[in-house]
Amino acid sequence: MGQVPITFIRQVLALISYTPLLDDPKFPEDVKKRAREILAGCRGGSVGSYTDSPGIEIIRKHVAEYIQRRDGGIPCDWQDVVLSAGASDGIKAVMKLLINEEGGKKPGVMVPIPQYPLYSATIAEFNMSLAGYYLNEEKNWGLDIKELERSISEAKKTTNVRAIVIINPGNPTGQVLSRENIEEIIKFAYKEKLIIFADEVYQDNVYAEGSKFHSFKKVLTELGEPYSKMELASFMSCSKGYMGECGLRGGYAEVINLCPNVKAMYLKSISAMLCPTVLGQAVMDCVVAPPKEGEPSYATWKKEKDSVLKSLNERAKLVADTFNSIDGISCNTVQGAMYAFPQIKLPAKAIEAAKAKGQAPDAYYAFELLERTGICIVPGSGFGQKPGTYHFRTTILPQTEKLREMLEGFKKFHTEFVKEHQ
Amino acid sequence: MGQVPITFIRQVLALISYTPLLDDPKFPEDVKKRAREILAGCRGGSVGSYTDSPGIEIIRKHVAEYIQRRDGGIPCDWQDVVLSAGASDGIKAVMKLLINEEGGKKPGVMVPIPQYPLYSATIAEFNMSLAGYYLNEEKNWGLDIKELERSISEAKKTTNVRAIVIINPGNPTGQVLSRENIEEIIKFAYKEKLIIFADEVYQDNVYAEGSKFHSFKKVLTELGEPYSKMELASFMSCSKGYMGECGLRGGYAEVINLCPNVKAMYLKSISAMLCPTVLGQAVMDCVVAPPKEGEPSYATWKKEKDSVLKSLNERAKLVADTFNSIDGISCNTVQGAMYAFPQIKLPAKAIEAAKAKGQAPDAYYAFELLERTGICIVPGSGFGQKPGTYHFRTTILPQTEKLREMLEGFKKFHTEFVKEHQ
Repeated sequence: MGQVPITFIRQVLALISYTPLLDDPKFPEDVKKRAREILAGCRGGSVGSYTDSPGIEIIRKHVAEYIQRRDGGIPCDWQDVVLSAGASDGIKAVMKLLINEEGGKKPGVMVPIPQYPLYSATIAEFNMSLAGYYLNEEKNWGLDIKELERSISEAKKTTNVRAIVIINPGNPTGQVLSRENIEEIIKFAYKEKLIIFADEVYQDNVYAEGSKFHSFKKVLTELGEPYSKMELASFMSCSKGYMGECGLRGGYAEVINLCPNVKAMYLKSISAMLCPTVLGQAVMDCVVAPPKEGEPSYATWKKEKDSVLKSLNERAKLVADTFNSIDGISCNTVQGAMYAFPQIKLPAKAIEAAKAKGQAPDAYYAFELLERTGICIVPGSGFGQKPGTYHFRTTILPQTEKLREMLEGFKKFHTEFVKEHQ
Repeated sequence: MGQVPITFIRQVLALISYTPLLDDPKFPEDVKKRAREILAGCRGGSVGSYTDSPGIEIIRKHVAEYIQRRDGGIPCDWQDVVLSAGASDGIKAVMKLLINEEGGKKPGVMVPIPQYPLYSATIAEFNMSLAGYYLNEEKNWGLDIKELERSISEAKKTTNVRAIVIINPGNPTGQVLSRENIEEIIKFAYKEKLIIFADEVYQDNVYAEGSKFHSFKKVLTELGEPYSKMELASFMSCSKGYMGECGLRGGYAEVINLCPNVKAMYLKSISAMLCPTVLGQAVMDCVVAPPKEGEPSYATWKKEKDSVLKSLNERAKLVADTFNSIDGISCNTVQGAMYAFPQIKLPAKAIEAAKAKGQAPDAYYAFELLERTGICIVPGSGFGQKPGTYHFRTTILPQTEKLREMLEGFKKFHTEFVKEHQ
């Protein structure tokens, strides 16, 4: 992600990889303690050994404690926690459980539009059917229950809708769902007997004032029965948050209320792939159980974490404000995650020019931008958007100075582009 | 695997994880050089960044150079090399390309019996059909072309056979295929238009005198056209060999002669999973490009490698010899890999006792062994075996003293078990 690595995480990795460093006085005691604890969970005391397929027990327990803390004490059973090589791996492993056809109908999965393409790719790979529901751009990309109802009644004609995916905070849309909205979604899912896939990998990335992350697990539990007994899978990753350790492939799924037979099948199915990378598991451990106040690594960790999140926060505002200052572009508040998904009004002449080139209008716009300025955005058509509207996804990840420069170049390009196509 | 880690690999991991160690005089210069080289291939110089989905370019190039060296100079294009999170991940990604049904028939894959269960699990997951062929126990688990022909003509009745899996050196059977046998298999695959899946993860594990590892790539290329133009995927892993770094999840596939459209689909399909773990990629790099003579880490690396392989070699003999010394057990020479798959003659009374318990006879035997001695073997029925024969898989991995102890306990158990069931 281009951000500076968190020292605590990287020191633990170094020590568990090369254990003679455990005796090196350079490393703080809490790093050593953590490294020893992880190694004690590894067979033969080595990260080179296979672990249990759902991950190392002590790390699963740390994850469960993290979830319990996050959700204000609502219990989490560590046996419901399954570690994975990044969230993608975890999502695919759970979605695989839906593959079976019933009554000659393909299983269907409700997915937001715009969506993160992992979902469409996985659903296609598993020969399932995607039932898209549009996020409401006017309500800062919230979920309209009416739209969910329209989508499912359309999908039911041909498919057996089994699950709903919600990405919160949103990718590529950057919204953070309100508690009320989450309650409505849970009730909708209950009525329709849907398993909820809560993609919550951006749970640490909430910026906007008044926005707060509410986990589906917490809301569903607090709603009480019958909702608290619903099947829910929630996913987390080491690739986002303040750590951004994408390449190390750490993640977990918490899967609750699964029918015991299905759970057994789930655990059996992941065992074919042996185990997620032990070093990725270790990163997850450091993320869910960071240094505590009073421990030697705490101050550095806190400083590094706060600095990354503060900067992302500033950039979230900078990006939305700058786009909104450009005529013909409108951008919702980036409440969370790492992206903005602004809408662009394209002149009729630009749409014609795109057609002549055999390109989607937003792809044409993106290619022009890339060629003229070197700035790379992803056209909205890659994520899905309401017909007749045009968007693009951009990220708030570049460092502030680079981002400022990029936004200036963008503004200049857009003005010229519109002028040329008037 | 319980073996001592290779210092060079672990030092490189430590340095790329925590880069301030690059300035630590404790680490040899070649380790630092390698770490810098890998980091230079990472975006932003960090192992925390996503890499290209097929892996870091410099590592793919090192793999290609390794393959070229291994195969006596036969060229390897680094763009045919795709890194993966262990061999299993690589095998699944290539097998996925066969999923499409044609003419209402499921795609079929020929798989040895006994086999490594990843194949049966993957084929079931992808809703394909497994066409088993029996390995010839009398010919030290070689492949009989007549048996391949029997198997495919049987399978063709209901499926569209697309591929053949060969595990060489064999898991669980420990054979190393002769060059002649490989030539026959290639010609058979050519005649039947099959893609060859060469599971060659044990290529460094060859022990028996007169046995030598021949890669399918080399033999197929040396056979010349038309064979040299056949589609072949070969798989390698960091989990075996002398390094045994299972938990770090490194591996690669070399896929040659693939139709360009299929290759494009292959690369697109792996991109949904972003990238294999960067630290696993780094381990693969150290395996394919170990320290060279004259470099500071060479002597230690050589000593560690030789010591592991020498010990495995001794244990391979010890295991086969001991089993052959037990009345009612016969074991082929463990020519390679890490396992023995001995045959046991079970008394009729034992078979009855198993039936009464609702267990497979070899499973009954294995449970009795476990309960009475604590020794764990895997019954042959888990891997497949000719009807009416009984086997078990055991490994040569425990350290020699432990292995000796285990074999003694085994011998005592077997004698008692047979006496009781006479």
